[in-house]
Amino acid sequence: MSQSLIVAVIGDGRCDATMAAEAEAVGRALAKAGAAVVCGGLGGVMEAACRGAKSAGGTTIGILPGLDRRTANPYVDIPVVTGMDQARNLIVVRTGQAAVAVHGGYGTLSEIALALKAGIPVVGLGTWQLSKQDEPVDAIHRADTPEEAARLAVELAREMFQI
Amino acid sequence: MSQSLIVAVIGDGRCDATMAAEAEAVGRALAKAGAAVVCGGLGGVMEAACRGAKSAGGTTIGILPGLDRRTANPYVDIPVVTGMDQARNLIVVRTGQAAVAVHGGYGTLSEIALALKAGIPVVGLGTWQLSKQDEPVDAIHRADTPEEAARLAVELAREMFQI
Amino acid sequence: MSQSLIVAVIGDGRCDATMAAEAEAVGRALAKAGAAVVCGGLGGVMEAACRGAKSAGGTTIGILPGLDRRTANPYVDIPVVTGMDQARNLIVVRTGQAAVAVHGGYGTLSEIALALKAGIPVVGLGTWQLSKQDEPVDAIHRADTPEEAARLAVELAREMFQI
Amino acid sequence: MSQSLIVAVIGDGRCDATMAAEAEAVGRALAKAGAAVVCGGLGGVMEAACRGAKSAGGTTIGILPGLDRRTANPYVDIPVVTGMDQARNLIVVRTGQAAVAVHGGYGTLSEIALALKAGIPVVGLGTWQLSKQDEPVDAIHRADTPEEAARLAVELAREMFQI
Repeated sequence: MSQSLIVAVIGDGRCDATMAAEAEAVGRALAKAGAAVVCGGLGGVMEAACRGAKSAGGTTIGILPGLDRRTANPYVDIPVVTGMDQARNLIVVRTGQAAVAVHGGYGTLSEIALALKAGIPVVGLGTWQLSKQDEPVDAIHRADTPEEAARLAVELAREMFQI
Repeated sequence: MSQSLIVAVIGDGRCDATMAAEAEAVGRALAKAGAAVVCGGLGGVMEAACRGAKSAGGTTIGILPGLDRRTANPYVDIPVVTGMDQARNLIVVRTGQAAVAVHGGYGTLSEIALALKAGIPVVGLGTWQLSKQDEPVDAIHRADTPEEAARLAVELAREMFQI
Repeated sequence: MSQSLIVAVIGDGRCDATMAAEAEAVGRALAKAGAAVVCGGLGGVMEAACRGAKSAGGTTIGILPGLDRRTANPYVDIPVVTGMDQARNLIVVRTGQAAVAVHGGYGTLSEIALALKAGIPVVGLGTWQLSKQDEPVDAIHRADTPEEAARLAVELAREMFQI
Repeated sequence: MSQSLIVAVIGDGRCDATMAAEAEAVGRALAKAGAAVVCGGLGGVMEAACRGAKSAGGTTIGILPGLDRRTANPYVDIPVVTGMDQARNLIVVRTGQAAVAVHGGYGTLSEIALALKAGIPVVGLGTWQLSKQDEPVDAIHRADTPEEAARLAVELAREMFQI
């Protein structure tokens, strides 16, 4: 394994079957495109994305909020133990060279904002919409399918990081 | 000085005169209401809020992203030196018992999201609007004036923390 | 209150009566010398140092590891809520312009090391001794009494930060 | 790749040829024993340990202090971008299930202390010696050769984490 493309997948720690299927498809498509997946390492969207990546032979990195590596979902190859609670969100998005947001709550919104602040491209799949003074702010690239989201994220990461 | 109410003021490190005047009025109104102001400690909205708080005899805490305490604006009483870059955003909102967002960019958006995630009430003055699937998400309390924003933040903090 | 000297007091969260008396005397002497006290905000040496500082009319800042401000000891004026566990140790020593280590375990040792790494002077009162290859490394300034520790810390901070 | 043993190698960002040779041998021996290497991702001891691990087909994780993934040494497989400066030291030692300290300065000492505080076994190769009140504190397991250090670290990690 040499240094390769890494894409963050962000989303809720709990999710319904539809979202899980979407996140799994994102993970699988990223792995097929040769990108490793980094996420928060726990359940829900994170676990589904890791499961998808592993089903296609990919590599998965889980940036854990707590102190116990056993909180990582079973599809995490590399558990990174931070003990820094939500501050680990920052590490998730910075470690990725692009991020795919799958739906998500406020934790995901913070990750989207931190990624955009850091200049990291964000692809959204049914996630937050942002506006200011009743004007939409179009910084999130929208995708309609998991495969499109993965393709777009890889393309944006390659462009941004010249790889 | 005994332990008292602390309210976060969040917003851009650069701002125009109108925003600065608003942030200054928020800081002043918070100090008059007996609340200390915590912010990111730098310029723009942060400096204006601190200046306002000091003009009314308040206490100001600046949670600095870098390693040099001299980056604190001159109205910061207590410079807290984190060296953790944007991870300090989390500390700003958690140290407050409510937050007032004055306009703001992606850094501010991350702070709003982190506050909402942590259950800390957020009052918005011309700041981000959030929606999902074309439905607005009304978690940010809106204020029309700086004084209303400060009053609302103090009220919500007292309710939340039973003080 | 204008920006003033801040000195960190570091030590265990649990301590016996002798250490508590020493920490309290350090806090009191720092306050008398016009320095605010920053610490980890919890019990033991931290609480004793804050109690001492308050008994002499000083200001106290507690950088808390958890998410609940009510974990601050009752002598903390400004509770800073990090939720970053031991990563807050870094903030404690960086916020101080010098540090006084009162005995202490591994957490305190990490704070001593982080302070020395950051170029912040450390005064030791019965604390760790460091050596490499059987040669002592004399980077910690030794004091024999709490009053001497406080005096030395203030002097070193003033020298270092030219204040 | 499935979840496997991870051992931290800690030491200076600059080092002489002797230390580099030792760190390289530690990395190589860890990889041969099936352990991934986690480190701070930069030069000196960190780079040498990664080079050694890669020479034996191992996996390497670099927890970077800054914001730029290109600061990772060329032998890092997985660059984790924290932007949290020395706070990343905590993540290095927590991500490992044991740590090998190769000589090292104050940054390394902080990592040793944080590991011991977290209950993670530390093996020392020519590194800091700790004492209190003129009594040595024997918490660091001493090794005389890089191979012994790696072997001991793997053994202690397996014992601690029951793997």
